[in-house]
Amino acid sequence: MPAQPRSGCAINAAVEVLGDSWSLIVLRDIIFGNRRHFRELLTRNNEGIVSNMLASRLRKLIDEGLLTKAEAARGQRAEYSLTEAGIQTLPVMVALGTWGMTHRETSPELTIRSRIMADDPQLVAGLMDELRETHLGVPRPNSDGPRSSERLQAAYEAEISGN
Amino acid sequence: MPAQPRSGCAINAAVEVLGDSWSLIVLRDIIFGNRRHFRELLTRNNEGIVSNMLASRLRKLIDEGLLTKAEAARGQRAEYSLTEAGIQTLPVMVALGTWGMTHRETSPELTIRSRIMADDPQLVAGLMDELRETHLGVPRPNSDGPRSSERLQAAYEAEISGN
Repeated sequence: MPAQPRSGCAINAAVEVLGDSWSLIVLRDIIFGNRRHFRELLTRNNEGIVSNMLASRLRKLIDEGLLTKAEAARGQRAEYSLTEAGIQTLPVMVALGTWGMTHRETSPELTIRSRIMADDPQLVAGLMDELRETHLGVPRPNSDGPRSSERLQAAYEAEISGN
Repeated sequence: MPAQPRSGCAINAAVEVLGDSWSLIVLRDIIFGNRRHFRELLTRNNEGIVSNMLASRLRKLIDEGLLTKAEAARGQRAEYSLTEAGIQTLPVMVALGTWGMTHRETSPELTIRSRIMADDPQLVAGLMDELRETHLGVPRPNSDGPRSSERLQAAYEAEISGN
């Protein structure tokens, strides 16, 4: 169980869970990279997270109710899933991405998605519905429309190719 | 100067600056509490920040370009001001507050402002204009309308009194 918070402030409550160098990075890789296993979270991370840090962040995110871990049979890989609280960190990431791309030098190609999401709250809501489907098994509403992830990917590819 | 970032990702860039236990708390106290001096940032903080942590966070926020410090004459108190990059952490705080009030137990009275801001992007934009006026001397656009801070305070008082 989470420890007693330092105060009753909602901003502080979130900072106590998410305010460190790695928790949001691990969640980002799960959300945008759909990485569900320890090995790929470790080896494909762009910021070079090390093994014991990743293990400690995953444990904390489970303890805090943002992830669940499905224990696997012997020889199989355990799978991590987002909870609803984990999925709802997406708007925090969008806000952080907007700040980062405005006030820091970032790689243009890694910033396209942040820019598209910053301007399109509907797209962000749609991505959250897709995450609910993938991680929680909740069917998407309006599931006959185009997927938000496909719209994001198409917009990204259009930018990359210079259209 | 900030160190070389761990990657070119915009989310990571923001996490490197804001991803710790105290930076956003100090910024919150400056933004919502209009605390501009070391002593009041120390003594009025709800989470019990200690003196050398506050000093280190203020130094980091200056180094990273989110605050400036006006050196004072001998015997006078130095004043901290937000930069534009500091002011633009407000949407990050709104997103964090929304997450915190939804997924953590918080004190209802400390959560009212977060709830009002979560539903009203115009109000958040207006608060940023007020911060630009207070901290950067930039006149507010539409300065004959009601101040967003007054609207927020009025909504807060209406809730507190049970209307």
